[in-house]
Amino acid sequence: MSERMFGRIALIGIGLIGSSLARVIAREKLAGEVVISSRSAETLDEAAALNLGDRYEQDAAEAVKDADLVIVSVPVGASGAVARQIAPALKKGAIVTDVGSTKRSVIAQMAPELPAHVHFIAGHPLAGTEKSGPSAGFASLFEDRWCILTPQDGVDPAAIERLSAFWEACGSRTELMDPVHHDQVLALVSHVPHLIAYNIVGTADELENVTEREVIKYSASGFRDFTRLAASDPTMWRDVCLHNRDAILEMLSRFSEDLTALRKAVRRGDGEALFDLFTRTRSVRRSIIEAGQDVDVADFGRSAAGGREIGEAAK
Amino acid sequence: MSERMFGRIALIGIGLIGSSLARVIAREKLAGEVVISSRSAETLDEAAALNLGDRYEQDAAEAVKDADLVIVSVPVGASGAVARQIAPALKKGAIVTDVGSTKRSVIAQMAPELPAHVHFIAGHPLAGTEKSGPSAGFASLFEDRWCILTPQDGVDPAAIERLSAFWEACGSRTELMDPVHHDQVLALVSHVPHLIAYNIVGTADELENVTEREVIKYSASGFRDFTRLAASDPTMWRDVCLHNRDAILEMLSRFSEDLTALRKAVRRGDGEALFDLFTRTRSVRRSIIEAGQDVDVADFGRSAAGGREIGEAAK
Repeated sequence: MSERMFGRIALIGIGLIGSSLARVIAREKLAGEVVISSRSAETLDEAAALNLGDRYEQDAAEAVKDADLVIVSVPVGASGAVARQIAPALKKGAIVTDVGSTKRSVIAQMAPELPAHVHFIAGHPLAGTEKSGPSAGFASLFEDRWCILTPQDGVDPAAIERLSAFWEACGSRTELMDPVHHDQVLALVSHVPHLIAYNIVGTADELENVTEREVIKYSASGFRDFTRLAASDPTMWRDVCLHNRDAILEMLSRFSEDLTALRKAVRRGDGEALFDLFTRTRSVRRSIIEAGQDVDVADFGRSAAGGREIGEAAK
Repeated sequence: MSERMFGRIALIGIGLIGSSLARVIAREKLAGEVVISSRSAETLDEAAALNLGDRYEQDAAEAVKDADLVIVSVPVGASGAVARQIAPALKKGAIVTDVGSTKRSVIAQMAPELPAHVHFIAGHPLAGTEKSGPSAGFASLFEDRWCILTPQDGVDPAAIERLSAFWEACGSRTELMDPVHHDQVLALVSHVPHLIAYNIVGTADELENVTEREVIKYSASGFRDFTRLAASDPTMWRDVCLHNRDAILEMLSRFSEDLTALRKAVRRGDGEALFDLFTRTRSVRRSIIEAGQDVDVADFGRSAAGGREIGEAAK
């Protein structure tokens, strides 16, 4: 486009998501100026060394001055404090959004702090990897991923439209959703899978009849698929648990009930029940691949050896 | 090598593992002749169309005649029946092995059926993908993977040596292990991860407040990593559950205990306990990558879109 989408964008927090945003904003020329803020001087130095923005401010309030779009990319537990800090400095008519994995809590923390003269629209790009920090980001992180926006009643539709257009310019598909429903869906598709992955890796860590060396050596048999999720940022995931507690507990309790039934089928040697479950789940994989949400390469395209090329197909 | 390792190799079962063996045996010229057997005429036709062997026999007893090496690659529940069927036709001095995921049960099923004049050495290549059938195999499947042999007391060391050399020629690293210990280790690194993956995909399938469409649409947030394991062959996994019941129940019970503690930490909002677990598990991932058992590419190297190239690194 000939004109920049926003005059000034302020990125509060410059980890995996914030730094990916900085990269795609630069690539797509979506802002006249990008101001980056992090509480940590070290992180800010790292962002500057990577040349991710035009200006760097440790003070978030300084960073948001005259910004037309403010994107808060911090662990969800810090959302309220950031909102409180930036509120007095926000420009009239600015759009304020976030990228947190839980929405009910972020809205409850941020909305009361923000002035009426800004457009607050909570959001969540469903994108990420197990890596953290400014150097982990990349410009294509959001491509063909969903970004869910959960605006409250009464938010200016033009502002929602503008924020959606921004995410679409970053490569995402956008969707509006009720924040409570968002939290239930994400508990299932993201939070509980991460907790289960953390849990089994933790279980393995504590066994006495199987050594850690054996777990690592033979992990390619299935276990390693869980370790990727269990390598995600601990602070982010602690906050997710604390801030989407009810939906997570509900899903974990369903999962546990089903696991009890599965244990019973194993104990009783009920081959028919096992076969039925193992057949039913197969079709979900097919649907995910058809929906373009995963690659249909055997074993994720991992070659036998760690170092060799990825993507060797069956032949 | 100038001389073929074996005169005739019989492959009983020609699914993912059997057909990968056929391909690597051909590539490395490990046999003078490869005879392929499958109970299913359809599968045998598929193997013939793929030109995987020199001869094709629906009757396993016919296939093993004069074979120097017999590799049984069938669901573990069928091991006993296959052993009973081939026993009378086996050549004196032949090596008989299998590739099953459970070893105590396979030994209990096969050893009593086989004549004393063959060398029976149960084995398990820790290699596989979520795909099944003769067309799913590929010659490099075993490269840099472990193959565990669990010979009983009194087996001729020269035969063990010869079978190890065969697997090494297929690209594997070999290891001798006690069958009971094998079953415990595999329950942890393979069987329970698969069951948990099947379980959560099953849970998702039955929810009323989150639709299947939503699960599929938003699966990239974590859930999809489980669906790969949950797409594995149902017959094989039913048999694994029935034939490694005790070790699986023991590991599932540990996992459930830990999950109860994790649920309690979430319920109580115990951020410290959550952070500790999430930090501890991170180092396991690092060790697995250092051991060459996985690739250190963010998100398994999956690009944002399903169809695009794999292996885009952070930049």
